[in-house]
Amino acid sequence: MQLAFDKLGGILPAVIQDASTGEVLMVGFMNAEAFAATRATGDVTFFSRSRNKLWRKGESSGHTLRVREVRVDCDADAVVVRVDAMGPGVCHEGYQSCFFRRLEPDGSAVAIAERAFDPEAVYGKGGGQ
Amino acid sequence: MQLAFDKLGGILPAVIQDASTGEVLMVGFMNAEAFAATRATGDVTFFSRSRNKLWRKGESSGHTLRVREVRVDCDADAVVVRVDAMGPGVCHEGYQSCFFRRLEPDGSAVAIAERAFDPEAVYGKGGGQ
Repeated sequence: MQLAFDKLGGILPAVIQDASTGEVLMVGFMNAEAFAATRATGDVTFFSRSRNKLWRKGESSGHTLRVREVRVDCDADAVVVRVDAMGPGVCHEGYQSCFFRRLEPDGSAVAIAERAFDPEAVYGKGGGQ
Repeated sequence: MQLAFDKLGGILPAVIQDASTGEVLMVGFMNAEAFAATRATGDVTFFSRSRNKLWRKGESSGHTLRVREVRVDCDADAVVVRVDAMGPGVCHEGYQSCFFRRLEPDGSAVAIAERAFDPEAVYGKGGGQ
């Protein structure tokens, strides 16, 4: 099947879901090349919009995301990748999930999870993925 | 907090997750107005890229998505909306989730769910949401 990369100018959103818990860990974007690399290697690979290049998640931290299953939506313009996370978390701020904040009625965002690791120890002071 | 709508030219991906089961039901896009409407009404409201207007999910089918919780990611450029689905499914093809197909190693996509409702009875022959 063909995925519809054209709707967003060559990329589509990839929802990364923990295969064991169902938790949504992060949302990234894939272009055709990143999607092919993900399929070929079994490691989630995104297209980084800011760096304009492929980005194998965990390439610096070692916290890769092993693909268990890829699901495609009805319009083939989004995918859900169910994964086993190799490491304590995916977020560059040190959380298991990038979605560690809940929006409150007043518009503020509050953390609803504990930090899972020290991001400076994993990524260095410059941050990273 | 401010969401980063600018990275995709005024929209961001909204992952809709069943609050009870954790299943990812669909991915849509919200602009600032759609996000505000979602927050104000408690009904998930997208920005339709094809129709270039706000689209309250379920406005024709009655299968609205009631917001239980909104989570924001570290970069504030994606949201997960945990919902109670008012109806048997969200997909215009008659499935509970739009992600009813799994990609096989050979690249084909196979349905992994049963149809939950008759889309023609709900949407009419023209299709709809």
